[in-house]
Amino acid sequence: MSSERYETISPADFFYRNRDIAGFSNPTRAVYSSIRELVENSLDACEAYGIPPDIYIRLSLLEQESENAKNYYLRVEDNGSGVPPEYIPSAFGQVLFGSKYSIRQMRGTFGLGGKMAILYGQITTHEAAEVISSTGTTKVYSFKLMIDIQRNRPNVLSRRVEDNPDKWHGTVVQFSMEGDYQRAMPKILDYLKESAIVSPYANITFVDPKGRLYKFDRATEKMPSPPTETLPHPHGVDVETLRRLIELTETRSLSSFMNRHFLRVGATTAKKFLDYTGIDAELNPKKLTQKLTVKLVQDMKSYNEFLPPDASCLSPVGVDLLTAGIRKELNPEFVVADQRRASAYSGFPFIVECAIAYGGEVPKTGDILLYRYANRIPLLYDEATDVSWKVIHNMINWRNYRVTSDMPIAIFTHVCSTKIPYKTVGKEYIADRPEIEKELLNCIRGLARNLAKYLSKIERHERDQMRQDLFKKYLPKIAKFSSELAGKEKVPDIETLMGGKEELGKQNENDS
Amino acid sequence: MSSERYETISPADFFYRNRDIAGFSNPTRAVYSSIRELVENSLDACEAYGIPPDIYIRLSLLEQESENAKNYYLRVEDNGSGVPPEYIPSAFGQVLFGSKYSIRQMRGTFGLGGKMAILYGQITTHEAAEVISSTGTTKVYSFKLMIDIQRNRPNVLSRRVEDNPDKWHGTVVQFSMEGDYQRAMPKILDYLKESAIVSPYANITFVDPKGRLYKFDRATEKMPSPPTETLPHPHGVDVETLRRLIELTETRSLSSFMNRHFLRVGATTAKKFLDYTGIDAELNPKKLTQKLTVKLVQDMKSYNEFLPPDASCLSPVGVDLLTAGIRKELNPEFVVADQRRASAYSGFPFIVECAIAYGGEVPKTGDILLYRYANRIPLLYDEATDVSWKVIHNMINWRNYRVTSDMPIAIFTHVCSTKIPYKTVGKEYIADRPEIEKELLNCIRGLARNLAKYLSKIERHERDQMRQDLFKKYLPKIAKFSSELAGKEKVPDIETLMGGKEELGKQNENDS
Repeated sequence: MSSERYETISPADFFYRNRDIAGFSNPTRAVYSSIRELVENSLDACEAYGIPPDIYIRLSLLEQESENAKNYYLRVEDNGSGVPPEYIPSAFGQVLFGSKYSIRQMRGTFGLGGKMAILYGQITTHEAAEVISSTGTTKVYSFKLMIDIQRNRPNVLSRRVEDNPDKWHGTVVQFSMEGDYQRAMPKILDYLKESAIVSPYANITFVDPKGRLYKFDRATEKMPSPPTETLPHPHGVDVETLRRLIELTETRSLSSFMNRHFLRVGATTAKKFLDYTGIDAELNPKKLTQKLTVKLVQDMKSYNEFLPPDASCLSPVGVDLLTAGIRKELNPEFVVADQRRASAYSGFPFIVECAIAYGGEVPKTGDILLYRYANRIPLLYDEATDVSWKVIHNMINWRNYRVTSDMPIAIFTHVCSTKIPYKTVGKEYIADRPEIEKELLNCIRGLARNLAKYLSKIERHERDQMRQDLFKKYLPKIAKFSSELAGKEKVPDIETLMGGKEELGKQNENDS
Repeated sequence: MSSERYETISPADFFYRNRDIAGFSNPTRAVYSSIRELVENSLDACEAYGIPPDIYIRLSLLEQESENAKNYYLRVEDNGSGVPPEYIPSAFGQVLFGSKYSIRQMRGTFGLGGKMAILYGQITTHEAAEVISSTGTTKVYSFKLMIDIQRNRPNVLSRRVEDNPDKWHGTVVQFSMEGDYQRAMPKILDYLKESAIVSPYANITFVDPKGRLYKFDRATEKMPSPPTETLPHPHGVDVETLRRLIELTETRSLSSFMNRHFLRVGATTAKKFLDYTGIDAELNPKKLTQKLTVKLVQDMKSYNEFLPPDASCLSPVGVDLLTAGIRKELNPEFVVADQRRASAYSGFPFIVECAIAYGGEVPKTGDILLYRYANRIPLLYDEATDVSWKVIHNMINWRNYRVTSDMPIAIFTHVCSTKIPYKTVGKEYIADRPEIEKELLNCIRGLARNLAKYLSKIERHERDQMRQDLFKKYLPKIAKFSSELAGKEKVPDIETLMGGKEELGKQNENDS
């Protein structure tokens, strides 16, 4: 009775049909997402090799074909490591092909964003994209390509090789797309500004369609150490990962298998763990039965003696750079930052760092301003579903810290990890994994105590100032009147009475 | 200088690595998502053929391998249309293969859920899944299969054919998986209960691991008409869709091309539209240049004279069934429902229907209870990011409708469409497309006015009741005392004075 039509669609076709889930739902979001995804790829391509990033973005309006739709030409250029020519077509024209599928801290997670941008350009303008790249060899390669969406294959229209006398390295991606810059502008500028805060070692230049130049200059030459790839931690392993490792391994015993392929498993730990499981340590891993494979995975999860994942593969921003970035952009009256010790969820190491800024150019919005970052990406949409929002709004009683809603306060949260638990392909918010939630809560609470101290100092200062002002106003009059009453000519010296602010302050402190 | 490792991963591998985005992040969510995805497939398989669904779900605890992880065996059985044997391996063992990739109203959107459930079972228990199905022929087919994640291919371990004397049709899917039923239980029961409200023509039986039986009985035999597939509406077309249609078409002129392949484009509209674009109506579509293709798409979007998408392909629940479902489950004191006329976003037709229930067994929670549905799927997670939440909490001033936060009020919203704009693969919330937002707002406002009338009637009634009670208490005493004072024996008849409630009510109405 069934007459359903069954069909296979390619991954490119899947993401083409469901581009909403990747942040490409309309011309406004698409301009924003395209710039964002390409800038993130560029930053990754620089940082992976310790190159201070120079990123140039230009969005120009094309001649209008129709009254209602506007077409733009987007160019993003970086001085990163470049893409070897043999990989260029697939890296930019084939979904689920890329270099992001390893365990290390990168902005890119899904290996999807750059292709989605090119794909969106193609389905709205039907023009080829151009990719120019060199890895610093004697040649620069240019490709014009389109994506064959139904087959998920790059379709190379032309390929050009030129000399590279200056040994330039980097990548240029440029293509035309439908967009709505007018509406996307505020988010794009916020995005670039917030990126500049957490990547203060980057030069980012943006020329918008009206020719306006936005320049975010490098504030430091100090680069974070490049992210390194790590082995999986036993706590985060599932049967499929274990099966793949067994297929590839050249080890001959379970103990050396554990030791070789997992993070924080030395020879001793491997032995102790295998004692715990009751599986023979000398067993050849390739001979594990299905039942024992499952048992091994479950025991890896439940064994408590593994050392926590090593966070040396992570590169947080650091308290100094974070503070410097905030000072530069918001010029606050008070700022304090803190970084928590590394922790882990499901076997992935992560580090939380936060800052609170008060006063100065921090705007008053009637609520705490929240700046969220994940692996140095500013997250701008769907704030209320993010774990940081939950912590700040549902788990902290701000009255305990003398904070009221009319104060100019901004909170910055940054989570870095070898795998950020995003809940969407569009990378907009972080899931409330309990381990991450706890670290955020403790970090922000600590900072809030610092803020409370500062606020109480200001309050005291203001109270003193008021008292002082009162004295200043009335003491001279009292002195004058009393002199007149007493029939004396010379008004007594009241300067000493008013004393130093400091002294009054101190006296007050003893009073209370 | 680049030494990045480039690789291709299969779509199965992509979703395996990023299972958080599909709702499979941990054992709790995984049990919930597995049941949900399979039940939705079952309901779709019944409704597509007008079969009143009989769905049987059983979750049993397996013998424990480890103290920390619990393994369950899940079986979901339906009496739907069944899957033809040649499609069974791919339909259950290959990601991005399925029957959901057409323009019609279905619960399934991504063709991904069932496979993700099987995949999750496999990576946690390493056991094969079993699929038994018949389309009502003389045979029943059983397959044991696993997913080759790296190659995205089904791996069939065994295949069995049996006689089907009763011409049974339907599908059984069963497999083992790690889970945490204890924690998932409340959401699972909510999910089934809420599904029963919007699909009151379904029998749903759930036997949980403790052997407890939950039965949601059919409340009506009336089935919604099966969803029909439609052509794309010109407003929702992009260059890629147009390109594919041009590749397939057998028409020889643009006017007949427009007429044949698009929704609501008759011969006259086609001609008028092509006049508007200025492209020759007699041009062979296969001869469209790239520039004209783009222009045609842009003009299709901006042309205002196309009729809105036809909603006959949609099957909303309907005011009667919705009210009946709510009465059955919440037994409210007052309930009112409304369905809006069909509207469209990006070329996809949609219908919004809502209900408000008050009192009775509606719980008091200090806030308005929100029940969200999309294509008859209850949405339970991430409420605050949904368009319905935004409308109810940010766009309506409830005080205008006499509603206070301590009242027992529940609001139901249902959006049905050939494409629900979900923002996640996990289908948890609907994006705030302006067209959908507007329909929801108008629908809920209308209902709120009805509620306000009812609430003011109750208020008046209560005031009258109080007055009445006061009269009842004092009038007899006054009558008695006055009689005594007047020295009369017979107390006057006061019954007429207290009159009917009705009269007092009316009098009161004239007063105010």
